[in-house]
Amino acid sequence: MAAEFKVINPDYATAVRESFGRQGLMHTLGARIVTIEPGLCVIEMAYAPGVSQQYGYFHGGAIGAIADNAAGYAAYSLMPAGAEILTVEYKINLIRPAVPPTLRAEGRVLRAGKTLTVCRADVYHMKDGAPGGLEACALLQSTLMRLESSGS
Amino acid sequence: MAAEFKVINPDYATAVRESFGRQGLMHTLGARIVTIEPGLCVIEMAYAPGVSQQYGYFHGGAIGAIADNAAGYAAYSLMPAGAEILTVEYKINLIRPAVPPTLRAEGRVLRAGKTLTVCRADVYHMKDGAPGGLEACALLQSTLMRLESSGS
Amino acid sequence: MAAEFKVINPDYATAVRESFGRQGLMHTLGARIVTIEPGLCVIEMAYAPGVSQQYGYFHGGAIGAIADNAAGYAAYSLMPAGAEILTVEYKINLIRPAVPPTLRAEGRVLRAGKTLTVCRADVYHMKDGAPGGLEACALLQSTLMRLESSGS
Amino acid sequence: MAAEFKVINPDYATAVRESFGRQGLMHTLGARIVTIEPGLCVIEMAYAPGVSQQYGYFHGGAIGAIADNAAGYAAYSLMPAGAEILTVEYKINLIRPAVPPTLRAEGRVLRAGKTLTVCRADVYHMKDGAPGGLEACALLQSTLMRLESSGS
Repeated sequence: MAAEFKVINPDYATAVRESFGRQGLMHTLGARIVTIEPGLCVIEMAYAPGVSQQYGYFHGGAIGAIADNAAGYAAYSLMPAGAEILTVEYKINLIRPAVPPTLRAEGRVLRAGKTLTVCRADVYHMKDGAPGGLEACALLQSTLMRLESSGS
Repeated sequence: MAAEFKVINPDYATAVRESFGRQGLMHTLGARIVTIEPGLCVIEMAYAPGVSQQYGYFHGGAIGAIADNAAGYAAYSLMPAGAEILTVEYKINLIRPAVPPTLRAEGRVLRAGKTLTVCRADVYHMKDGAPGGLEACALLQSTLMRLESSGS
Repeated sequence: MAAEFKVINPDYATAVRESFGRQGLMHTLGARIVTIEPGLCVIEMAYAPGVSQQYGYFHGGAIGAIADNAAGYAAYSLMPAGAEILTVEYKINLIRPAVPPTLRAEGRVLRAGKTLTVCRADVYHMKDGAPGGLEACALLQSTLMRLESSGS
Repeated sequence: MAAEFKVINPDYATAVRESFGRQGLMHTLGARIVTIEPGLCVIEMAYAPGVSQQYGYFHGGAIGAIADNAAGYAAYSLMPAGAEILTVEYKINLIRPAVPPTLRAEGRVLRAGKTLTVCRADVYHMKDGAPGGLEACALLQSTLMRLESSGS
């Protein structure tokens, strides 16, 4: 299901980073974008007690937040300048306890429609001996909606 | 679909609050449990820049985190002492922009099985003129899994 | 979360039944609409070997089909004449084996937006001793999209 | 996220086909298994009026049924002889109208746990000019549960 996407906004990377920078929650979680390409966004988050659940792993809510965002900004990378984007819904399976020290969420566009975009995101933690040192710990599927800019 | 649930652990409220207290993410988000009853958990979160998205509303990831938790602790209230619980998956629709100043997530158990529990959570924001001053802004459905305690 | 919905198409019930009648799958499954009201649609389906899974219960795919449809026609009841509607996505939990002889799917609109509508559907089977003789066996949450009519 | 799965039941293909053969709904829909390998199941379904929705495409409920099944039998291929399997939940995005004449659902295991298995399925229709002649029209993510055999 490899796809080639058409970039409408040549400054998409800047638009993504500016929007991400305005998300207070991402600062709070210590999350950052490490890759942004057309239809792809990778976000990493380091472990800290402030993103933990009761057993010392990453909290599913924090995992969902970065996975939703990785998917959302993958979608946003394909939108025109000035577009606004909202998450309609997301669904996430937490398939393994997400262990410290680092999470990596890779969001990809699977269908970019005029109004709706559908994405998947895979979240990985570090594991010795896993292929590439990464093992999947969560799987997300989500729907994003493009709003026309409300203008300046 | 009202249900009456059997309480196995008479100290369920204490167990829920202790577990919640160990979740670093809930401290980070400023979330707190306001109600815990058999099969019901209500969590509130005040707005702060640290839980925002790029347009100044509550971030969908923060909404998902408290909704997942409200559902999870509703499920946990029905489990025996010492049980451990994990979120298998959750799905959330963000049906309106979640506006400051306060969010309220009400999680309810719909099916408490031996291994799996299925819940819904409705998330509300404050709105003048809405019934009870509350309007739904997100809807979650989730699956939780009970693990036997890994021991003392 | 009770809601009062504004009916735009006074002939919504006819529109729903005509659309339903054109769905070959509903004929195949032996499903029929038993109630259609603004924001509410109830579909029933009798058991037959042709809707079974490997253990003799109703098949989850058949359950999903009528639950998706109950939600979709609940949404359609609030749309203008000539509108077209598509299911964007649905998520269903199968919370108990769905036993013969009859299933009942109740779909309700929770949020009717301009473009997107969000619904839940609860599916029940018959059970002696359950409240009203019905017990929930599946829970759906879905997103529908309104398309403008492609014309006459 | 390529994975290599351990086969526990050397007769898994026979077990899958026998179980599939007992599903009345699959007969009703005209669906058949075209590939079964460890962690992978491919199901195809030909168009017929009996699987249509109101606009003449494949019905989302029929799409969900074969996608759920492709995922479920992918999971079942990794289970021991005599195991029973149930779908806990599935979520599906219908990303394009599913056009005749043929649908192909490819289900893959992403996480095979002791009790729960998590899968994705991609559903394709035929399209001239698409890579391999196939274009994705639906995306599923699901959770399956293994039950111990109730024994003979």
